[in-house]
Amino acid sequence: MNTNILNRDTICAIATPHGMGAIAVIRVSGYDALPVVGQLFMQNGKPFDMGKMVANKAYYGHIVDRDELLDEVLVTFFRAPHSFTGEDSAEISVHGSVFIQQKLLHILISRGCRMAEAGEFTRRAFVNRKFDLAQAEAIADLISSESEAAHRVAINQLKGGFSKELQVMRSKLLEMTSLMELELDFSEEDVEFADRSQLKALLQETLAHVDKLKDSFRLGNAIKNGIPVAIVGQTNTGKSTLLNALLGEDRAIVSDIAGTTRDTIEETLNINGILYRFIDTAGLRNTDETIEKIGIERSYKKIQEATLVIGMLDATKGAENVLFAAKEILEKMDLEHQQLILCINKVDTLDDQGEALLGQVRQDLDNDDIMVVCLSAKHGFGLGDLYSTLKLSQPLASPDATLVTNIRHYEALLHASESLKSVQQGLEMNIPTDLISQDLRQALHYLGSITGEITTDEVLGSIFSRFCIGK
Amino acid sequence: MNTNILNRDTICAIATPHGMGAIAVIRVSGYDALPVVGQLFMQNGKPFDMGKMVANKAYYGHIVDRDELLDEVLVTFFRAPHSFTGEDSAEISVHGSVFIQQKLLHILISRGCRMAEAGEFTRRAFVNRKFDLAQAEAIADLISSESEAAHRVAINQLKGGFSKELQVMRSKLLEMTSLMELELDFSEEDVEFADRSQLKALLQETLAHVDKLKDSFRLGNAIKNGIPVAIVGQTNTGKSTLLNALLGEDRAIVSDIAGTTRDTIEETLNINGILYRFIDTAGLRNTDETIEKIGIERSYKKIQEATLVIGMLDATKGAENVLFAAKEILEKMDLEHQQLILCINKVDTLDDQGEALLGQVRQDLDNDDIMVVCLSAKHGFGLGDLYSTLKLSQPLASPDATLVTNIRHYEALLHASESLKSVQQGLEMNIPTDLISQDLRQALHYLGSITGEITTDEVLGSIFSRFCIGK
Repeated sequence: MNTNILNRDTICAIATPHGMGAIAVIRVSGYDALPVVGQLFMQNGKPFDMGKMVANKAYYGHIVDRDELLDEVLVTFFRAPHSFTGEDSAEISVHGSVFIQQKLLHILISRGCRMAEAGEFTRRAFVNRKFDLAQAEAIADLISSESEAAHRVAINQLKGGFSKELQVMRSKLLEMTSLMELELDFSEEDVEFADRSQLKALLQETLAHVDKLKDSFRLGNAIKNGIPVAIVGQTNTGKSTLLNALLGEDRAIVSDIAGTTRDTIEETLNINGILYRFIDTAGLRNTDETIEKIGIERSYKKIQEATLVIGMLDATKGAENVLFAAKEILEKMDLEHQQLILCINKVDTLDDQGEALLGQVRQDLDNDDIMVVCLSAKHGFGLGDLYSTLKLSQPLASPDATLVTNIRHYEALLHASESLKSVQQGLEMNIPTDLISQDLRQALHYLGSITGEITTDEVLGSIFSRFCIGK
Repeated sequence: MNTNILNRDTICAIATPHGMGAIAVIRVSGYDALPVVGQLFMQNGKPFDMGKMVANKAYYGHIVDRDELLDEVLVTFFRAPHSFTGEDSAEISVHGSVFIQQKLLHILISRGCRMAEAGEFTRRAFVNRKFDLAQAEAIADLISSESEAAHRVAINQLKGGFSKELQVMRSKLLEMTSLMELELDFSEEDVEFADRSQLKALLQETLAHVDKLKDSFRLGNAIKNGIPVAIVGQTNTGKSTLLNALLGEDRAIVSDIAGTTRDTIEETLNINGILYRFIDTAGLRNTDETIEKIGIERSYKKIQEATLVIGMLDATKGAENVLFAAKEILEKMDLEHQQLILCINKVDTLDDQGEALLGQVRQDLDNDDIMVVCLSAKHGFGLGDLYSTLKLSQPLASPDATLVTNIRHYEALLHASESLKSVQQGLEMNIPTDLISQDLRQALHYLGSITGEITTDEVLGSIFSRFCIGK
């Protein structure tokens, strides 16, 4: 990667959110960032003396273009490599009028800068080795994180823990590969530099690590995008009422959005710092009606995709029906990977028999992993119990555990895992060292692609284009 | 005003626009701003040493609260009085996630800061005499300016030209008042310290200046909020079609918004850096229909309120009708204060007779102040001519002329003008000095209220509450 080619171009963009605010920040980075901004900057009616400029200092003054005063500003200059991008750069803090922000960009462009592409500042920082690719992606995740948990995962990745784990694995595998490839050079002499049993142990260990990271994606993704919770049950058990109750008064428009009761409705909700995606589904019942059948098929699909399932049961229908409905939901689930919370709804109509029904359901199901709560979604009774149960049943992760949240990383880990398995098989079957070495190289390639040690412009382009402009 | 009481309170707010962006800036200002932010700030895993802190320097580091890493940040500390507010303050530049912004505010509040009220940063700057009230109001205008012209007016006011004009007037009047009040002390001796002819001349000059400023409000307000342009004419002359054509394809939903043709539709449009408010009105015709009558009454009202009137004429109706319709519009106008642009529409249907009709209308009206253009709003023909005509007929102001844009200032000037006229009358009628002096004091009061030299907490509250939070 040739950093000089990138540097020649000076880029600019609004770094703060769009719209009007007290202030906004315009970023400029690249070869001409200092002179271009310096020429526009005046203090006390005199041009700013760039010769006396102190880096990292916030200067108060005015942006003046062709004798026209644009705004009072604070300007901070940064000298390469001590900047976010690692290039010479400047941050101009202007009054947050949309007009001023746009006008300043126009002025900068008229002076030879160009609009930054999405993610270009971060891309330059990556190219200048300010951080690796996984950390760059963590920045995008950090910016879009909507919950405490998602934020924690992103900031851990930004700190570089994930990158370090990958580097340790890679360097061990690389050493082993080098030894194996050395054998190839001496192939006529039939020596064995790489101890096969040591290699097998290392492989076993690495594969376990890769698989652990790979498997963390399910949870990592759930934390990033919200844990999917399907609300299912027979018709008229109060599923939509529960969704409304969970969302609270603030989001009461939900009942308007519903539109047709056949479609599934999704709403995200942050409970105790965890983001949940609640999915209200069509009621389950036997029907010959075509459209309703499609809706019910979708409900079953949502059950399978969810991490948590809330099974709504109608207390007024009697114990037999309640148990039948609960089992119908259970049948569609995979309790190894999914959690079920049964909600016995409408208990307000039962007087004192709610507890009895609850006991009966628990006894009949005979499974401590299934949680059961009593509710009146309509009157908001029992919601506290449901919240506590959600908290108990939330997928747990130790605060410092590395979680993979990025589908690109997940796929690379998947490929690396497959390559490592091929190496294992190759060793078992005593296939030639050069073929084994090839599989090892593959695994190294995939692991390296995560942090960007091995990458292509195409991959970089696709990663950074998902960033926002100005980052 | 007791600045110390305000200063004890440390306030915080998000200063950048709401939402997600590459970065966001949180402002903290007040007595504890430096220690509170300093305690949260770490560099290389170690607490930041506030003893070695250099003001105005951007420090890279981390915000850590109770061992939890919140974000990588840039922090700049400012020492009183060298800050926007004039107090100790800090700006924290974080990654622009909504979560991080909110969380940092929570952390700051948990450490004793409080959320700033709207405009509180600027109010503190005013209290600490960083600028006067008119300049503070200019900041709000600057932030909300939507066009080049509005921006120029606001930045001129921020530079303080308006404030200086007021100060000069006030100090002259104040001197004169002191002399007159000195006469009162020596009233038994019947001396005249204040030369009456000199006083009359000064009054004349000041009154002219006040009235000039007062009268600039019509233009200043038009520039700030958009110059009102009423599009009027008989039914089916193509008024809505013209509005659509002016707004261009980007805003084609206008035809959807219309809804009922009786209501007036307003849309702002920035043409060559000037903001216009185009108002489409109900077609004018004789009718007995009640609702339509109300619409037509409103059209006449809109004509009277507009700075510019575009009179739509239907070329296909023949010269006689066109002239009648033009005169009908003219009747409702005040050409002293309003500009008329007649648009002969649908000229595409006329073959070569358009020019002839144009000539006939011009001749018959015999008024060089009325501009006439030929159009086909439907086919976009002649729009360029209309733009040029709008530009020619736009209310002109020299770039450096002071324009009053604020209704509070306008009202103060109006009252000052009335008080000064009372003084003039008093002098003519030789009424007692103490009464004249009272009117002079009134005028001084009103002029002083603009820059905030004389003001009340109530007035300040109402002014700053219109600011955005964080400013």
